[in-house]
Amino acid sequence: MTQKDFWLNAPIGVIGGGSWGTVLAILLSRKARHVRLKVRDPEVAKSMNSKRVHPKVFSELALPEALVACSDWEAFFEERPLFYVWVVPSSSTREAARDLSPYMQGDEILLHATKGIEGGTLKRISVMLEEELPIRRIGVLSGPNLAHEIAHAQPAGTVIASRFEEVREAGFSLFDQPNFRVTLGTDVIGVEWAGALKNILAIASGAFDALKLGWSARAMLLTEGLAEIVRFGVELGGKQETFLGLAGMGDVLATCSSSLSRNYRVGHLLAEGIPLDSVIRQVGFTAEGVQTTQHVAEFAKKRKIYMPITEGVRALIAGEVKPTDLLRYVQS
Amino acid sequence: MTQKDFWLNAPIGVIGGGSWGTVLAILLSRKARHVRLKVRDPEVAKSMNSKRVHPKVFSELALPEALVACSDWEAFFEERPLFYVWVVPSSSTREAARDLSPYMQGDEILLHATKGIEGGTLKRISVMLEEELPIRRIGVLSGPNLAHEIAHAQPAGTVIASRFEEVREAGFSLFDQPNFRVTLGTDVIGVEWAGALKNILAIASGAFDALKLGWSARAMLLTEGLAEIVRFGVELGGKQETFLGLAGMGDVLATCSSSLSRNYRVGHLLAEGIPLDSVIRQVGFTAEGVQTTQHVAEFAKKRKIYMPITEGVRALIAGEVKPTDLLRYVQS
Repeated sequence: MTQKDFWLNAPIGVIGGGSWGTVLAILLSRKARHVRLKVRDPEVAKSMNSKRVHPKVFSELALPEALVACSDWEAFFEERPLFYVWVVPSSSTREAARDLSPYMQGDEILLHATKGIEGGTLKRISVMLEEELPIRRIGVLSGPNLAHEIAHAQPAGTVIASRFEEVREAGFSLFDQPNFRVTLGTDVIGVEWAGALKNILAIASGAFDALKLGWSARAMLLTEGLAEIVRFGVELGGKQETFLGLAGMGDVLATCSSSLSRNYRVGHLLAEGIPLDSVIRQVGFTAEGVQTTQHVAEFAKKRKIYMPITEGVRALIAGEVKPTDLLRYVQS
Repeated sequence: MTQKDFWLNAPIGVIGGGSWGTVLAILLSRKARHVRLKVRDPEVAKSMNSKRVHPKVFSELALPEALVACSDWEAFFEERPLFYVWVVPSSSTREAARDLSPYMQGDEILLHATKGIEGGTLKRISVMLEEELPIRRIGVLSGPNLAHEIAHAQPAGTVIASRFEEVREAGFSLFDQPNFRVTLGTDVIGVEWAGALKNILAIASGAFDALKLGWSARAMLLTEGLAEIVRFGVELGGKQETFLGLAGMGDVLATCSSSLSRNYRVGHLLAEGIPLDSVIRQVGFTAEGVQTTQHVAEFAKKRKIYMPITEGVRALIAGEVKPTDLLRYVQS
């Protein structure tokens, strides 16, 4: 049995039944034979297993046979997963990892697809997972992938990065397919920071669009913004080339163009003059970019990394400047 | 009198009365006191000077007082320009420069804003101008600047590059203003190649949109495409940082998002299955990208520079592949 065959027949566990988790589970189930998706709601699990559709997320999509939804851990662990995909929001990642930890033996492989950082500590997702789980073979999947497009098999590319060859090999075997092309890399730090930092630019993009500043201004924002992300990311140990690739520039382009992104909507609403607490109520608490902006702006100031756009978005979120002032930070 | 005052009072001549030439003349006339714009059509000149609007290009815009339109060289040279702005299409640049040459004394400064290269020779615009004009102090203005947005004072940034400090100083004095921010540089090669090469990606973007491939795919196209432009541009003597700045990545983003770009429309029509000669008739002969693609693809092959997307666009233009095949070149 080849390595590839091994992984396609191994039990796979996906944790996190939101839209991206569901889409990744569907992608996996097109290749692997045993995929379990952990969801919170028993009704959702029941509906997925009997009617073969997710009742809320892309309910027009038929779920592949290989996919089984589980709302309790007992069913999820009926067969012990050897490969995990982690799609839990960054704010719940540490706690959820603590809950999962006792079920792991140490030989499992995990790929996470969460974009964000830990508030306060500025720790990356993989660092949190390394701290809480008894496993070491961890990697990250990230790229310009709009969930609804990937769900409908529109073509895209993504990056899987890990220091461990087995993680890269398993990830490639399980995910790479005609309309979802996987590129492999080793720069975990760069990929994770790129995915977190681009949320700051998504907020700024939403604000620019609300102000109707046009395409020339948006091109300026994203170009200067990517330069800012590179400065920060390289200072923290990422590689410049990562930020210029799919997980960096690519993700900036996809996220900042999509009015479906929560962070983009946050920026749009803020620039319409709506106060932060109402914005958060409207968009929901999973707009990772708000926290990321605050923490990164503070850290950049301390470390003297020049990030005028991040500072402008922070000031906009804090209500310290008028929305139209944001432009000044881009041109500085 | 400061250098800046000197230039704001000096006679300025803009050659090329298309939409971008007209917009640049308007930007200049907001600061400089004596700006002449050479246009072909005497009726256009008459209307611009008497009614203070361009009859065809942004006819809703009032022209600044300082702007005078001239359809004949005699009127244009009534006062000898010390600063020229060149906005002639690349295909007519050499001939037009030969016509202008006898009127120049050698001490003039020229900034060109033409994006393209000379067919066959692959020579950059400034090289052609250096060959045909008796002047040496030449520079280039280029950036993510959609003419209709700049005309309506939407905010934007641009790059002026020249080896000569006087060109950079004069250009900055004349163009920099609140909604049109000028960044200065010295990498003329990089700025010129970036402006020419991005037209290839604009064609590909139009094709991608016609095929309805989505934002994730477009992000992949532009990310891989920019990497390709960097490889080519650096090989030809440009600096990587130029291609990652406003004149490179910035211009790629603005042009490839605008369905108003001629090159984008060429790609869109080709992907709809319309043959090249009908496409060219519909769009007009000034879609610089078609020639650029052919010449660059040929040159890249000879010099063994890896440019799969350029090769794909070339094959699409040549009718050698189906539009849907273009995706293969991006994922290769």
